[in-house]
Order: sequence, then structure tokens, then C-alpha cells
Amino acid sequence: MNATPASNTRILLASRPTGEPTLDNFQIETVSMPTPGAGEVLLRAIYLSLDPYMRGRMNDAKSYAAPVELGTVMEGGTVAEVVESNDPNLTPGDFVLSHLGWQAYGVQPGKHLRKLDPTQAPISTAVGVLGMPGFTAYAGLLEIGKPKEGETVAVAAATGPVGSAVGQIARIKGARVIGIAGGPEKVDYLNELGFDAALDHRSPTFDEDLKAASPDGIDVYFENVGGAVWDAVRPRLNTYARVPVCGLVSHYNDTGLPEGPDRSAQLMSAILTKSITVRGFIQNEFVSAHYKNFQRDVSGWIRDDNFRYREDIVDGLENAPEAFFGMLKGRNFGKLLIQVGPDPTR
Amino acid sequence: MNATPASNTRILLASRPTGEPTLDNFQIETVSMPTPGAGEVLLRAIYLSLDPYMRGRMNDAKSYAAPVELGTVMEGGTVAEVVESNDPNLTPGDFVLSHLGWQAYGVQPGKHLRKLDPTQAPISTAVGVLGMPGFTAYAGLLEIGKPKEGETVAVAAATGPVGSAVGQIARIKGARVIGIAGGPEKVDYLNELGFDAALDHRSPTFDEDLKAASPDGIDVYFENVGGAVWDAVRPRLNTYARVPVCGLVSHYNDTGLPEGPDRSAQLMSAILTKSITVRGFIQNEFVSAHYKNFQRDVSGWIRDDNFRYREDIVDGLENAPEAFFGMLKGRNFGKLLIQVGPDPTR
Repeated sequence: MNATPASNTRILLASRPTGEPTLDNFQIETVSMPTPGAGEVLLRAIYLSLDPYMRGRMNDAKSYAAPVELGTVMEGGTVAEVVESNDPNLTPGDFVLSHLGWQAYGVQPGKHLRKLDPTQAPISTAVGVLGMPGFTAYAGLLEIGKPKEGETVAVAAATGPVGSAVGQIARIKGARVIGIAGGPEKVDYLNELGFDAALDHRSPTFDEDLKAASPDGIDVYFENVGGAVWDAVRPRLNTYARVPVCGLVSHYNDTGLPEGPDRSAQLMSAILTKSITVRGFIQNEFVSAHYKNFQRDVSGWIRDDNFRYREDIVDGLENAPEAFFGMLKGRNFGKLLIQVGPDPTR
Repeated sequence: MNATPASNTRILLASRPTGEPTLDNFQIETVSMPTPGAGEVLLRAIYLSLDPYMRGRMNDAKSYAAPVELGTVMEGGTVAEVVESNDPNLTPGDFVLSHLGWQAYGVQPGKHLRKLDPTQAPISTAVGVLGMPGFTAYAGLLEIGKPKEGETVAVAAATGPVGSAVGQIARIKGARVIGIAGGPEKVDYLNELGFDAALDHRSPTFDEDLKAASPDGIDVYFENVGGAVWDAVRPRLNTYARVPVCGLVSHYNDTGLPEGPDRSAQLMSAILTKSITVRGFIQNEFVSAHYKNFQRDVSGWIRDDNFRYREDIVDGLENAPEAFFGMLKGRNFGKLLIQVGPDPTR
């Protein structure tokens, strides 16, 4: 291991974007290394998780969490190594799930950290398939989507960390799975995951493809994208369909309301006439009741070779903004991580 | 009792409306009296229930039920008297809940009829507060809305048979109730029902009135109207709010999609960021599990003088179309019934 440097690199939110974020919205700076106080630990970031929810945090409006203040470090989940510890339960060299945000080092109270066991699973999975994105899929699909054996489940962004988990859990639960992604390479991967149908939403025949892939309609649509995919799925929904809504990434850069006609009444009418449930959620709601089962089930499925995950690792904290922009456009392929520093376990 | 006439009067669906229905869409005709076959009974209609769902049945598109065929009798729930019976369980003079539609007499299989006891409740309530509209309120509010004590429940069309039941059940369950209706006379009635706030959606200050009436936001919005009321309620919804959707009467005469901007993504975004549940339903779904409890609870509350209902009775089958048009515009005040023939119990 290298010696700890004298300074820390971090990326701040410099201004709020209008529409698509740009490099101007971020500011990279070098500051002196922070010092841990009583009960605190100094952490070195290894992996920074980039997730679509971060786009919402850049806005001034309160969403389900407060916005990032201008001039402060962009927030984000991290896998980090303990460098110095004033917490008796943590020792230098320990790996922890933490929330350092977009920076190379940081100080956090030891009690906010969850220790990771690198012999159980690769530490990067703590912000991916065995972390927040995986749990979002597990809780939303099973608690809201409630797929029954033989029912049809559709999911978009299906090669992403949430979508690929949704599809695989649905498959394991005996549902018929329609995975939707952008481009032939991703579609190939959906077929490898054993989905019953793998569709390219960029195809000019997407609407007809979806119809052909759902001869009995769609019972669960796990919504993480919005836009054109949702428009195509809606008429295929069956009576009593369930729509867990965990994201709308295609709308995060919207600057105002889209042009008309206004289809909100049409949406309500579909909900009414088909007795549809549309339910927004944030995974926190389900943590206390279901997190343990999630960890047990998904790690078991991975061990049994019944569940796969894919990581898209971009090297260097300074590349986080560009990687983030690409993710909002679906350019990543798998769980997007920034390799902030070396991973001694690989 | 008068002798049964030799002919029957009935109102057919003559053509499908575009937008608002007109008299041209209906045809009144006189035909010979039908004769009951084996197991059937001849019925004389006393009350015909007029309900917003009938507007959907006039369209060609399948909604949650098949459309009324052109040239056939408009459908509808009725309270009727048995005139002739080939069913051993029914005797002339019995009163039954039936589905004769818009006609003075009709034949139905005895096994499809529910006998009414006029000593227990006025027979008209079988198509109102103790029938489908009352049960829609009961099941939708308690099974989907799930109001907790101290939560705020808002309901529109709150003097109507569904809305007034929703508000009163919510009040009995300990919720804070905001009733919304059109015009000062209806608002006075909402105050009589003991609601915590009674708002006129026609008031130019409606948005501010709603805000003032919901200092802690809105936890349950029972949706039976749509349109401007829903637009005003949406920003007031709390995290984890529930929106049972049983009707959208303000949209039933829409001929196409309203002008833009398109607010459907904004609606999905509100559902996402506030973890809102929007759930369409038709009362049938809940009949087997909850109908008995509904009858027991609501009739008990009425007996205890803790629950009121109001009927708006229009005399004469020939006036059904005009009364129906008025209902779609909120002109009725209470449960709208057509007095098709005399009620021997009043």
C-alpha cells in the first residue's frame, strides 16, 4: 500500500444544471487531508458508485432527499479502506461501505460504516448487486410488483444494476421476463441472462416487438426509465397490473413540461379501467423488513451460478462527470463504478 | 297495485356519442310485454340508478366492461318489484335488486336477483348507499386508501353517493376530511356531514382554499373526478399518499387528448419522488371479501345516526337521458335515481 498523500482531491457541485449537466457544473479541487475526530475514521475511496438519482440531487428542488448544496462535495456511495481509525471496531486495512461522495479521501463516523468481508463477495458489489441497486430491484419487484409464477414481467434498462437484478429475480420466481435495453450488444447480454425476450428499444419495430413478446399482456412493469418505453408498455398492461416506479432516468434532464397533447388523463384512465397499481418507492422504505433476506437470497443465487452481474468500471475520479453524463444517456453497460483508488483485493 | 300494462317502454342506445351525449343517442320505444321463461321472473322497475360509469358503456371501446350494443337497452341497476315468478324463491310483490337497465319492465333469471327487505332499509338504498356506490366508497377507501387516525383524506364530488360515503367513513375512522363539491348549497351540506373542511372547486380561490385546509398535506385522495381538482390536490399529497381511482367523470366526455403541455411525466415524477400509490379499481374486485362487512357497518352507522345519505329522484323513465347529462356535469345533488314506477313502500 502507498503512503497516504498530504492532500485530498474532491469534486464539488459548482452550479446547478439546466437540462443536461455539463463539466461547468462541477469543480475539482485539492484540499488538505482531513483529520478524524473522536469516533471517526479516515477513509480512502476505492469505488465510487454513480447512480441516476444523483441527477436529482443537482437540482434545487427537494425530491425525496435534500439537494446537494452548491460548493459542497457531490454525494455518492463508496467502498473505501480504513486508513486511520478512532473507532475501536474498525482497523486500518478494513473495507467499508461508506458515503464519501465524489472524493478520494474522507472522514466519517465509524458507526455510519458497514464493514465488508472480501472473502464473501467482491467488495465492489456492496454498492451494486449486493447493495442499494440490487436491493432496489429486490424490494420493488417482490414487495410492489409481486410477480406470480407464469406472469409476464417487463423491465427497461435491463442490463443496468437495477434492471438486470429485476429480470433475474423475476425469472427465478417463475415469471416470464421481457428485458428491454438499447443496442444489439446489450440485447445479446439479456439473452445470456436467460430472459424470455430481449428487446432493443432503439429498434424502429420496438412497439411491434413488444407486442409479439407479450402475447398474454404484461402483469408487472418495473419502471426505471419512463419516456418511450413506458408509452409502449402501457397499452400492453393487463388488468391488475403492478408498476413499481423507482426511476425515470429519461426525464431527469427535462427542462420543462414536454409538448402536448396532455396524456396525464389518459394515464389515469388506463389506471382506472384496468385496475392498475402504480407505486413510487425509494428502497429505504423496505430496508428494515427485507434487507437481510435480500442479502441472503441474492448472494445465494450468485453462489449457485443462477444470477449474474456486470460492472462497468471507469478509472479515475476526474472522469466521474463524463461517466455520469454517459450513464444518463444509457452509455454504460452494467453497474457504473469509478475506480477512485486501487482495490487491494483484486 | 295497478294491473300490468300490455306493453313495455324502454330506452335504447341509438348511436354512440362524440363528446357530450345528446338526446339523439337514445331512442325510446314501446314493445310488447316480455314473458318470463323457466326460472325467470317478470319485474316492474321502481328505481333506475344513474351512474357515471354508464358514459363509458356508450363508447365502442372496451373499458372494464363491454360496451352497450347499438339498438339494445341502456344498462343500469334497478330496484324492482316481482310481477310474475317462475322462481320458487320469489313471489309477486317481492322487491329485488336487479339489472333491468333503462326500461319499465323486464325479465331476469331469479337466481340473478337479490331480495330486499323494506323493513330493514328503504328499498332505494339498494342501488345507493347500501349498494354499488356505497360499496365503491367503502372498499376503495378502506382497502386502498387505508386512512389512519389523524391523517387527512380529500374527496371530490363529495355530495354524491360515492364521495359522501367516502368522507363519512373517513370521518368515522378518525381521519381529517376535506370534502370538495361545486357550489355553495353543496358546500353547506358537506358542513352538515361534519367534514373538517368543505371547499367549492368553482371558487376562484380553490387552490389556496385547499392549501389552507390541508396544513399537514393530504394522505389519501379518493379520485372520482379528475381534471382541475386532481391538479390542485397533486402538489398537496404527502409521502406515502394513497390515491384510489374509481372514476374520472370530468374526462368522460373528452373527445381526444387535451392540449399540452404533456403532464404525464410530471405525474409519474410526483408518484416517484413521494412514494405515492395510485390504484384504479372497480368494486367487484372486493365483493367476496368485504360486502358483508360493508352492509353491516354502513347500515349500523345509519341506524346510529352517524351516517347520512341524500337522494336526487327524477320522475319518469323518459327523463333519464336529460338527468344523465346533468349528472355528468355535476348538476345532481345526491344519489341520482329515476323513479320509473311507484314505490309501494313510501
